[in-house]
Formats: sequence, structure tokens, C-alpha cells
Amino acid sequence: MSNTTELTPAEEVVETDLLEAIRAAIEARDADQARLLAGRMLDDDALELLEDLSGRELAHLFAFLGEDSLGVLLARLDHRDAAGILTRMSATQAADILESIGPDDATDIVQVINQSDPESVENILVAMEPEEAAEIRELLPYGEETAGGLMTPEFVAVFPEMRADETVTALRSVADEIESVQYVYVIDRNEQLLGVLSLHRLVLSAPQTPVGDLMSTDIWSVRADEDQEVAARIVTERSLLALPVVDDDGKLIGIITRDDIDEIIEDEATEDMERLGGSNPLDVPYLRASPILLFRKRIVWLLVLFFAQFITVSIQEGYEDLLAQVTLLAIFIPILIGTGGNVGSQTVSTLIRALAVGEVQTRHILKVIGKEALTGLLLGIVMGGLMFGRALLVGDGSTDLALVVGLTILVLTTWAATIGSVLPIILSKLKMDPAVVSAPFISSLVDGTGLILYFTLAKYFLSL
Amino acid sequence: MSNTTELTPAEEVVETDLLEAIRAAIEARDADQARLLAGRMLDDDALELLEDLSGRELAHLFAFLGEDSLGVLLARLDHRDAAGILTRMSATQAADILESIGPDDATDIVQVINQSDPESVENILVAMEPEEAAEIRELLPYGEETAGGLMTPEFVAVFPEMRADETVTALRSVADEIESVQYVYVIDRNEQLLGVLSLHRLVLSAPQTPVGDLMSTDIWSVRADEDQEVAARIVTERSLLALPVVDDDGKLIGIITRDDIDEIIEDEATEDMERLGGSNPLDVPYLRASPILLFRKRIVWLLVLFFAQFITVSIQEGYEDLLAQVTLLAIFIPILIGTGGNVGSQTVSTLIRALAVGEVQTRHILKVIGKEALTGLLLGIVMGGLMFGRALLVGDGSTDLALVVGLTILVLTTWAATIGSVLPIILSKLKMDPAVVSAPFISSLVDGTGLILYFTLAKYFLSL
Repeated sequence: MSNTTELTPAEEVVETDLLEAIRAAIEARDADQARLLAGRMLDDDALELLEDLSGRELAHLFAFLGEDSLGVLLARLDHRDAAGILTRMSATQAADILESIGPDDATDIVQVINQSDPESVENILVAMEPEEAAEIRELLPYGEETAGGLMTPEFVAVFPEMRADETVTALRSVADEIESVQYVYVIDRNEQLLGVLSLHRLVLSAPQTPVGDLMSTDIWSVRADEDQEVAARIVTERSLLALPVVDDDGKLIGIITRDDIDEIIEDEATEDMERLGGSNPLDVPYLRASPILLFRKRIVWLLVLFFAQFITVSIQEGYEDLLAQVTLLAIFIPILIGTGGNVGSQTVSTLIRALAVGEVQTRHILKVIGKEALTGLLLGIVMGGLMFGRALLVGDGSTDLALVVGLTILVLTTWAATIGSVLPIILSKLKMDPAVVSAPFISSLVDGTGLILYFTLAKYFLSL
Repeated sequence: MSNTTELTPAEEVVETDLLEAIRAAIEARDADQARLLAGRMLDDDALELLEDLSGRELAHLFAFLGEDSLGVLLARLDHRDAAGILTRMSATQAADILESIGPDDATDIVQVINQSDPESVENILVAMEPEEAAEIRELLPYGEETAGGLMTPEFVAVFPEMRADETVTALRSVADEIESVQYVYVIDRNEQLLGVLSLHRLVLSAPQTPVGDLMSTDIWSVRADEDQEVAARIVTERSLLALPVVDDDGKLIGIITRDDIDEIIEDEATEDMERLGGSNPLDVPYLRASPILLFRKRIVWLLVLFFAQFITVSIQEGYEDLLAQVTLLAIFIPILIGTGGNVGSQTVSTLIRALAVGEVQTRHILKVIGKEALTGLLLGIVMGGLMFGRALLVGDGSTDLALVVGLTILVLTTWAATIGSVLPIILSKLKMDPAVVSAPFISSLVDGTGLILYFTLAKYFLSL
């Protein structure tokens, strides 16, 4: 292989050519260029390109960048993607990289590999420093979605009689091993959590004070088997920088740090949004999702709603004679059920979010119903009035038909706002995810009920 | 007033009676009970109850709790609500409470009062400690949605030649004034930012080292006039605990802390969700929103979509003869446009979120179109097949009609997925909010195009 391949300077590489440029740098054994380009990948959020490199190319990149830089790249990637890359490297290289990543992220990646290939996990763990491998083994049993699965065992705990200056000295001796310290935890001889002390407080207090006198005993913690979203909510609501995790006996076993929480909050909002749109959550970054995966996540609800909408077909079959007599009735069907669906979708999205951030709780149900029914009525008066006017312009301008159409909108918006607010709250009360009432779900529901309402009013007012 | 009113112990108070219990405690001048109940409010996220208290009751509560406790409560409330409460108190009390809140939150509250009542802002600021009033005056000019509006002027900056131990001593002398220190910033004589140093690093390094040797020069900052969402994205993507804010000359003037960022991220997701549902963002907590406000936020898009849907009426008017000839055609309209709308809504919600978290960027447009068109086609094959089968059971079981209906679904799902993915990306490219393409918007668009497609296919296959 030649060393003379001409390379474009990294700054000029256009985004789509980044992968090719990295490959060229690897072929040319140009370590500096490879480092520059890796930096570009990080800045451009284009880390997914790493996945397209072969095992051999990754091994070279590893040699150029060193385990720390590659570790930084992998820790920023989705865990599944990072796992895919590691399995294409040698166990020794994978071990070196995992050592450079925090044990919580490293465990998440190992957990993914473990699902498909427990043997190579064993090889990697054996190749790691015993102490760091032990940390991962300790974290592995906790479910990915629990507080235990999220925590890192790297925290600092001291006994209450230790003085502030002694604690700082002790901290200094572990400084290399621990990434970052925000809090020092105070425990008793049984490792029970007594209190917490910010580094800020520790450093800025009189050096001789025992930490027991400095600590705050107003302390929040979660059990390791608790759902990770519970931990996330505590951290954000109390503006904490880290949250201690305890086992069944109340022993302090780890902490959850801020950056893990950010991911959960973001993922939670993503899932709610995808559900609201009427699909099951993707669980992988969008660009990684194949059309087959997208299909699978979407077809479920689509089918449910499709079969539910068969009811609209049946309803209309039942009114076929009516439709044949007054063909004009069909003309208004899309706008009627469309408007009803829109109001339902507006209400549902607002309520689902208000429930998710805790602004609305199940005890507020009556207050919410009152508010939404009134809002729906206000919307109905305006939209119904407009609809009445528009309907007068259709066909021979029958006032009766216009009345039917206007009245349908009035009742339908009120109904849509009411049912769109009640259903999410009821689901939340039943401990189900309120976002199951998606915009398409509420639209379909309103479609069916709206058609019955429309035909019933038509029969009555048009005396058919 | 009597002191003998019998009070329920705070633990037994059911949630709906909390307000009454607080009022009773105030009447009875029972400071301990009032403190207990205030804690309950905090734990139950029921702080909005404070708003229902009169000025006189608030004054008493203030006397029982002291400015610090009341400050904690108000800082947790929405700024508008907190402003409403402060204006019902005396200027001196309001000043005492604002002093106990961080200057960034205090400024946000003062900004709200300033909009309606600049005179009482002046009274409050005059009643405050000059130094703390000066901080608020400094922050007041920055727009609420900018980095400057979010920052606090409470930060620690030192020159690079200062030693680690000297810096710690200096920090100790300001410990009382500054809430919390995560980072020490290093500046030159012109107050230009040179680097940053975590407290962790500062404390755990050799005491004699100059901070200039310890600092990291890989530092992120924002200008004060930058949008707050830009600041939020930097903080979360780089997992920072605070972000420095500089003025036009690059002078360090403040920092944005973690807890402010959380609110923005949460608000941003709320706004996206409300937009996706088809309403304008509420901007106030849901329970605070009156039906009139809900009406105003929803009617705008409802009207836009309503007038757009008039097109569906016109389209159908144009095909009135066709509908009169084949009444059965009308039966399938709701399920056809419903399914198309559902696919569009699924796609739009996934894409809007992927754009919001930065997973998809405008340069991915071709990749996304290919992926979504294929997904839509797969969905269309399944749903179209089912639709064909169902349509055979309607009326006299015409294969031609079933073919028209099945084919419409096939084309419509492909079209809905494609247009639902392209539109948000284009809006994002045009620097508009992609969430403007709401679920109702895409449904209405698909309704109109779907009807034209349906009638065109019907004309052709049924030879009408």
C-alpha cells in the first residue's frame, strides 16, 4: 500500500465524502488525517459512519486514535451501534475501549452484545483489567430500564466523623479513577445512606469540620429495581446532579448521573411523540431504522385502526338508502369527520404532554372535563356557524341540510374535546401509557361516532 | 379570631382540602402546621394553590415560613404565577423573597411584573439589597427567550496565574454569596474567556499548580443574544453542568446553569407535541389555561384546516354525478382518507422528533425519502390487500370497485409517508419549525389528494 495517496485536507471534505476520506486516511496510514477526520465526525454528529467500516479498517483506526479517543466516539453512539462496532474488533481492543468508557455506558454496550453473543462478552471481560471487569459484572444483572441498569458504581462515600480536609485528601487519592465528583455521600458502618454533601460545600467549609456536620440529611434515593423514569423525574424535579441508588437493604450501591438522565428524558419525549403519531416507539435512532422496522412499528396500530374503521363502512352501508336519496350528504363527510378528528387530536396531544410532565394528575379529571367541554363548545359554535354558511352554497341551498351539517360540527367538536381529554386521564389512572390514545386513534373514534351522529340528525331534520 | 380552631394533622389532609387546611392554619396562627402544609404542597406539586390565597393570607404565610422557604416555593412555580403572588404582597416582603431566589429566576419573575406594572417593580427593586437589585437590573434588558435572559451573573472567574490552593481560598470567601459552583472560569485582563476548570479538577490537583495549567481550553460558550434553545442543545449534547455567556466583545458576563436548561428542554418538547397535535403552544401550565385561552390556541389551525377542507367539499361537488351513479363509492371515503391520514401522522411525528433531537438533518433528505417511500409501499401492499378483500363483501361484490379501493390505499399510503417525511425536512431547511406540519395538517392534505386520486381511479376502472 502506498503512502503517497493524495488526501484532501480534512476541512474541505464535504460531508458525504467523509467516509471515503476516512477510508483513504486508513489506507494511507495517515494517523494525523484520521484523527482530524474523527474529530469532524464528532462535530458533525456523523458517528454512524463508523458502522460502515470493516473490522480491519476499525482496527487501524483504533491504532491511530488510541482507545481513549475511540471510547469517546463510541460512548456518544447508540449502544446498539457501539456494540455492533465492538464485536467487529478483537477482544483485546474491545476491552481497551470499554475500559476507557464509564462503567454504566460500558455495561449498556456489553448488555447488547450479551444478548446475541455471550461468549465474546466473556472474552472481552477476561481481557479487561480485573477491577473494571468486576464493575461491569456487578452492573450486568440489572434490567436496562431500571435505576440499577443506569447507575455507575463509581461514587465517593465517607463516614460522618471524617473531617472536610481529610475527605478532600482522600478524594485526591482516587481522582484518577473517578471521572467526576459532584457529591460526597455520608454512610454509616452498615453502608446505609445518612446524608449528602456537595463538593462545593465540602471545599468551601472550614477544613476541620466533620462531614457529618456539613451534610444535608434531606436526601433523595431510588431502589435499584425502580423504573428509570422514576429516577429521571426525581433528578429533574429536584434539580439534582446525581441520585444515589440503594439495594433492598438500603445499602448505597451506586449513583445515577446527570447525562444518563438527559438521555432518558429525551427518549421518553420521543416515545410519547411517536405514540401520539400512532406508531410504536422505534427504540433505535431514526436513520438506523430500516423500512422493515418502520413497517413493523407502524402496521400494528394501522391495522387496529383499519379494522375499527370498517365500522365506518358498516355504518354507511346501513345508511345506503339515505345516501342514495340525498347524495349531497356524502359531500360533507370528509370535512365533518376531519374537523372532529382535528379537535380530538389537539386535545389529546395537549393532555398527554400535561400528564407526562406532571402538570395534570388523575385527581384533576373533573376540572379538565369541564374545561375541555367548554372549549369544544366554543370551537363548535364558531366552526358550526361557518359550516352552516358554507353548506348553504352547496346544491340548491337547503337550510335543513345546512342546519344538519352545522349542528353535527357543533356536537362533534364538543364530544371530541371531551373524550380526547378523558381517555388519556383514564389510561393514566389505569397505569397504562396515556399516549396509547394517539391522534389517529382519537380521529378514528370520532369518525365512527361522528357518522352516526350525522346520519341520525339528517334522518330527523330532513324527515327521511 | 380564635386560636382554638381544630386542625387536622397535616399528614391526614386529603389533597383537595389542602387549600382549606392552609387557610385554617393561617387563621389559627399555627406556624408549625402552616410549615408542614407548605411542605405538603411542595411534595404534591400542588403549588398552584398558593395563587388562591389572598394578599392578607400570603402576608401571614410569609411571616410563618420566612422569605427563604417561600422563595423555594415561588422559584418552583411558573414565573407568571409567582409574579401574580408577589404583586399581592408588600414591596418589602416581595423584595425579601426575591433576594432569596437566584438572580436568574428572580429576573424572570420581575420581567413578568414589569410588563403590567413597572412602577411596582421599581418599588420592589428599591426595597432590595443594592447589590442584588443591581444584578436584576443588569439581567432585565435581555429577552426572556435568549441566553442572556437565562443566565445568572453569579459565577467565579480567576486569572490563569492564580494557584489552585489560592483559588480554593478565594472561593471560600465568596461561598455565602454563590449558590453553587461547578466550574471556575479562567479569564485574561480583558475578561476574555481563556479556559474552564471543574471544581473537581481544582480540588483534586496539586495545590501549587497555577489554574492556567489545569484549565481545559476546549470551551463552549454562547453570546447573550443567542436563542436559549441553542444554549440548551450545547449543554445537553456536551453534558455540561454550566455554560458561559459572553457579550458582543467576547467578555464573560454570566453562566447558564443546568436547572434552567431542563425547563427549556421540557418546554421545547411540550411545544413540539402541542404543535404536532395541531394547536399553537399554550405557553402556560395546562391547569392555568382558561377555556378562552385553549380556544384561542386551537381555533387558528382549526380554521386554516377547515378552509383547506372546503377543497374536499368542492372536489366532491365536482364528482357529484359520479357519486350519484355509484353510491357505494361514498361508503369507502372515511376509511380511505382515514388510513392515508394515519400513515401521514405516523411519519410526521417520527420525523419531527428525529429533527428536533438532531438525529435527522436536512442533508439526509434523500435517504429519508427513499426509506419512507418504501415503508409506505410496504404498508400499502398489506392495507390495500385487506381493503380489496373487504370491499368485495360490499354491495354486489364488484371486483372493479374493490380494485379501485385497494389501489387507492396502496398509492395513498406511499404518498402520505413520502410527503409526511419531506415536508418537515423542507420546513427545517427553510429555518421554520417542522412541527408546523402537524398530524391534522398532513391528514387534511392527504384527504384532499386522496379524494382526487380515488375519483380518478374510479372514473377510469369503472368506465364512467
